[in-house]
Amino acid sequence: MAGNTIGKRFCVTTWGESHGAAIGAVIDGCPAGLALSVADIQGTLDRRKPGGLPSETSRREADQVEILSGVFEKRTTGTPIALIIYNRDHESHDYDRIRGLFRPGHGDFTYTEKYGFRDHRGGGRASGRETAARVAAGAVAEKICRQYGLDVMAYTIMLGGIWADRKEISEVNHEQINANLLKCQDHEASKHMVEKLEEVRKEGDTLGGIVEILVRGCPTGLGEPVFDKIDADLAKALMSVGSVKGVEIGDGFDTAGKRGSENNDIQVSKGYLSNHAGGILAGITNGNEIVIRVACKPIPSITKAQTCLDADGHEIEYAIKGRHDICVIPRIIPVCEAMVWITLADHLLRNRTARI
Amino acid sequence: MAGNTIGKRFCVTTWGESHGAAIGAVIDGCPAGLALSVADIQGTLDRRKPGGLPSETSRREADQVEILSGVFEKRTTGTPIALIIYNRDHESHDYDRIRGLFRPGHGDFTYTEKYGFRDHRGGGRASGRETAARVAAGAVAEKICRQYGLDVMAYTIMLGGIWADRKEISEVNHEQINANLLKCQDHEASKHMVEKLEEVRKEGDTLGGIVEILVRGCPTGLGEPVFDKIDADLAKALMSVGSVKGVEIGDGFDTAGKRGSENNDIQVSKGYLSNHAGGILAGITNGNEIVIRVACKPIPSITKAQTCLDADGHEIEYAIKGRHDICVIPRIIPVCEAMVWITLADHLLRNRTARI
Amino acid sequence: MAGNTIGKRFCVTTWGESHGAAIGAVIDGCPAGLALSVADIQGTLDRRKPGGLPSETSRREADQVEILSGVFEKRTTGTPIALIIYNRDHESHDYDRIRGLFRPGHGDFTYTEKYGFRDHRGGGRASGRETAARVAAGAVAEKICRQYGLDVMAYTIMLGGIWADRKEISEVNHEQINANLLKCQDHEASKHMVEKLEEVRKEGDTLGGIVEILVRGCPTGLGEPVFDKIDADLAKALMSVGSVKGVEIGDGFDTAGKRGSENNDIQVSKGYLSNHAGGILAGITNGNEIVIRVACKPIPSITKAQTCLDADGHEIEYAIKGRHDICVIPRIIPVCEAMVWITLADHLLRNRTARI
Amino acid sequence: MAGNTIGKRFCVTTWGESHGAAIGAVIDGCPAGLALSVADIQGTLDRRKPGGLPSETSRREADQVEILSGVFEKRTTGTPIALIIYNRDHESHDYDRIRGLFRPGHGDFTYTEKYGFRDHRGGGRASGRETAARVAAGAVAEKICRQYGLDVMAYTIMLGGIWADRKEISEVNHEQINANLLKCQDHEASKHMVEKLEEVRKEGDTLGGIVEILVRGCPTGLGEPVFDKIDADLAKALMSVGSVKGVEIGDGFDTAGKRGSENNDIQVSKGYLSNHAGGILAGITNGNEIVIRVACKPIPSITKAQTCLDADGHEIEYAIKGRHDICVIPRIIPVCEAMVWITLADHLLRNRTARI
Repeated sequence: MAGNTIGKRFCVTTWGESHGAAIGAVIDGCPAGLALSVADIQGTLDRRKPGGLPSETSRREADQVEILSGVFEKRTTGTPIALIIYNRDHESHDYDRIRGLFRPGHGDFTYTEKYGFRDHRGGGRASGRETAARVAAGAVAEKICRQYGLDVMAYTIMLGGIWADRKEISEVNHEQINANLLKCQDHEASKHMVEKLEEVRKEGDTLGGIVEILVRGCPTGLGEPVFDKIDADLAKALMSVGSVKGVEIGDGFDTAGKRGSENNDIQVSKGYLSNHAGGILAGITNGNEIVIRVACKPIPSITKAQTCLDADGHEIEYAIKGRHDICVIPRIIPVCEAMVWITLADHLLRNRTARI
Repeated sequence: MAGNTIGKRFCVTTWGESHGAAIGAVIDGCPAGLALSVADIQGTLDRRKPGGLPSETSRREADQVEILSGVFEKRTTGTPIALIIYNRDHESHDYDRIRGLFRPGHGDFTYTEKYGFRDHRGGGRASGRETAARVAAGAVAEKICRQYGLDVMAYTIMLGGIWADRKEISEVNHEQINANLLKCQDHEASKHMVEKLEEVRKEGDTLGGIVEILVRGCPTGLGEPVFDKIDADLAKALMSVGSVKGVEIGDGFDTAGKRGSENNDIQVSKGYLSNHAGGILAGITNGNEIVIRVACKPIPSITKAQTCLDADGHEIEYAIKGRHDICVIPRIIPVCEAMVWITLADHLLRNRTARI
Repeated sequence: MAGNTIGKRFCVTTWGESHGAAIGAVIDGCPAGLALSVADIQGTLDRRKPGGLPSETSRREADQVEILSGVFEKRTTGTPIALIIYNRDHESHDYDRIRGLFRPGHGDFTYTEKYGFRDHRGGGRASGRETAARVAAGAVAEKICRQYGLDVMAYTIMLGGIWADRKEISEVNHEQINANLLKCQDHEASKHMVEKLEEVRKEGDTLGGIVEILVRGCPTGLGEPVFDKIDADLAKALMSVGSVKGVEIGDGFDTAGKRGSENNDIQVSKGYLSNHAGGILAGITNGNEIVIRVACKPIPSITKAQTCLDADGHEIEYAIKGRHDICVIPRIIPVCEAMVWITLADHLLRNRTARI
Repeated sequence: MAGNTIGKRFCVTTWGESHGAAIGAVIDGCPAGLALSVADIQGTLDRRKPGGLPSETSRREADQVEILSGVFEKRTTGTPIALIIYNRDHESHDYDRIRGLFRPGHGDFTYTEKYGFRDHRGGGRASGRETAARVAAGAVAEKICRQYGLDVMAYTIMLGGIWADRKEISEVNHEQINANLLKCQDHEASKHMVEKLEEVRKEGDTLGGIVEILVRGCPTGLGEPVFDKIDADLAKALMSVGSVKGVEIGDGFDTAGKRGSENNDIQVSKGYLSNHAGGILAGITNGNEIVIRVACKPIPSITKAQTCLDADGHEIEYAIKGRHDICVIPRIIPVCEAMVWITLADHLLRNRTARI
């Protein structure tokens, strides 16, 4: 398979460019009989839209998803589910200036090196816009996972160097996360983050952050050693999101500095006494919560002038124009959730053949 | 595909348990005409053996690899390459004590939950021993990559909380790394690491660490967006190694605290002015060095007594016996390299069809 | 992967139901830089339309294909190519009568058994309409293959028991095939076939036939033993077409009655003296023409009354109404060609990694 | 994936050359908990050995299979099952004469064209010997299928132009097939076949034949449209066997000459009134017996002199020496069965995710 499909049993293929006619996803392998409507997907997709922060893009996409196949009388039929989102706001801007330019931190140079040329309009396939198709597909995966009692939530724990007060996992809740524009449960810290975003925006700069993802209610047994360990598949799924530069499971990099006696999660008859492992042992879920953190780099599109190469190899000074977010947070939050839903749905289905 | 194959074009399937008859790998998709001998593989495999540190296992495996197919008159034929390593030291120890026991931090419980029972001897398939097959396959991948001028080296940058003095990437070299038992270029820090290992060993405990992997000479253009980005595939490959709990590319988690203007790597006519991205943009190599770090948890097999669950759900105190390393470093070093070689070989081949 | 994707490097995923909103295909793995326009695809697609025979369906579909992604400034970009064909004529007919009915020879019963229910409208996913998406994708594959000098042509050699006069392979030509409504090079036989179709139509019955597919200009070396032999992949691709019940390569079933000395194709310095093997030896193309024949069953939708089971297991007499072809020939011809183009394109790309 | 793996969930990878050290198979995706012993596999493998006919090879291989992994205490563990068969009789013959020769009807030329050179000894990877690994893997697949009540039997219906008297499917039975050296239920016809084999052997020639495969007890619902239809996957699996040049399902090529009213299998409350479809409708099993026929070409290794090309393109006269069968029947019979078992096991497992 080429690179635009993820999953081995619940298989999601996405397609489309930022300024093409449309973007979409085809889901193959979704079991029949699952209740599914446009509203199920649209609700999730709406969470990815700009939410009103000054730090967010002013590009306005209705992002209306349509289900073109695979659903009949409100249930999935077992055949491929084609989802499409037309790009309605894609002709209004002029990208001619970047046609012959390799913007720093973007895929302009690498796509050109690989393919010989590129669709330069708005980043083409490399645009964050592609993630809308992932979110749409993730909403279908979520419906499968919910049948098994799983719950996934992603939230901001750091933005621009400002850390949220860390909660006990047991205190993390959807209400407080969703009540916050930055999807940060620490509303006090969030205020500082918003201020920082505004400050940095004025300077023509951008910020990064860290998102944590928590999976509750995950059954034991998901993951297929030795290469398709659930943590390996989650790492791939999340690292495939454009801005992500690091993924860690459970205590992640901190475990490197610990002793075995500190890091082992003791299991007693009533459960685990800790969760340093983040719910995964030997690549298989152990019944504990899955805990993942991803590092998101600052958005490379800054309005400050930078040196760029043009196609002839000349250096020029270039200040990016256009509608851009200051930080991928909070819009990356539903994307991270989608990638986790998709990976879990795939492994839930694969796990059905673990035993004779 | 089930979970024991990695790669889409250069495909490695490993098999075997710690205390079964043998372990092995089948490589399908290796191009014909590559010079390959047992010595090529054996040399790499020998790097994975215990090297004489007191902190290492006393299990002695000759680890003699045999090539059973796919090579004729010293060249690969284009047909599957079967590699086998017989387990010669597998009957000498008694694992009956752990048969009905779920050791903390191991896959004992999760394998049993998934499959209904498990091969308990030495961790069975979940044992680190499985990685010998990866290293053998990695040696074949390395031969492909070297044809393209690539070089991969992994080395210790932290062990048990002791950090090596960080070198400029340009100063990292094989000689100084290989001259050190812990594969740490900072020989002074390495002394402290060795002392720490000895100290912790006496306490019946274990340590973790951080390994950095550096790829030099990588051509531009490797990686297939959007899901098979080269960083996504590297993250999966490395996270699939048993002890790894975190993977980061380039500046990784540090990028989350930076501004776009700091983090963008400015490209000028003579090259890049920095390498925060770790050689990958939009999932495709950009010609810069690839830089990856992986966090390795402390080995869960400690000789201190811990509470364990038995198969009946009773808690018992258990102190692990047997031949165990104190830290996965340095033995994980060639495994990390192997996973990177395999991923790069796969993408080098896949990239041959990028253009018409 | 689930079942709606074919190809390992040139990967085609189709989606859509007969009476859903649209059908489509996503092509992943098409190399960048290939000239491609809507007209390239539309021209091929038009060949699949009813051509004016009285034996053909009166369903009129404009079958206008759109390219939604993967093409920029008339060249492929290396990213997924999404093709869509809206179903414009899908609401005009009433399929309520067959909702609770299992029509003989159709997938009504088997889809219901597998998935628990089905989209009954016009056969849903099992409809021949799905093949329009294959033909569209095949047109892209054709463009790749033509770069290598390949030519594929399919034509009728038997219909309703009437055999065309067999030509020498060297005499088969596009002009005479395309000049005939049944895509039969023997225009005399074709007249009898048309008469037979008309006769059978009046009786409320249907006919089958045999199609031969000829590939000229195929380079040596295509095919990947041992399972992905080019003949194995061709057999799968063609057998996946709804009406096909048999596939043979070269002399096919006739070889079973021959001696080795008769069947071996002697190769001399100027080429082969015969082509019993149909251009494939040990699963790899040998430079001779590839010759394939497929058996197409009569269309099961007859207007004569037949006994059917309903969902409650009762037997009822049912005469199918609606717009149906009398024979899958000639409309299956471009579908067969498409499946061969797709398989060849996939193997042309895969073959680029055969040697180091 | 490269070409040496078949199956998407029950995945079989074979490796090994005719005159290499060993051949083998790795099965990934076999569910845990299946009772499996060496004897289970060895018994099936023994059916592939030469059975004492004068028309069969005098090469004597013990063909002792070993299970190297994936089985613990007589049950599968869910991890990869590695099977190995050492080639014990592989050094006794001299293949130097064919090193620079392209034998007619063999893969000598095509392998050399594809890979640049080849392992010429006994056909290397293209040898029928590779099928021993398939048969071994098929025995594991059979054990899965038998849990679902399936039975597969293959038998000779034509050899060298001599047709067996066709039985009603209901009269086909293992006892009469297995009691016959040619696996032909018509023992009278079999006598003539044996005579023909002997006659042709004396003339230095070889014969082909037709094998029918019957699957009983197959549940409804197996197969994944639209490309992984069960008939498409069966066609691929069987066409991947070296000698097979044609595959047909149910009435196969005969359906092409029938009318819809003749060919439709009427389903009544107590079952089907006929089985022209061979148990498969729209690519999914319908509960009827699956019936398949494969055409096997005559073995190309004849002892009569033939013109061959050598590596320099010169024509020479060459009479093949060595141990060769006169006909692939009966030794291909267990190979055909193995390919069907493997395909069915794969689809039985895949079907577990058809519904939510």
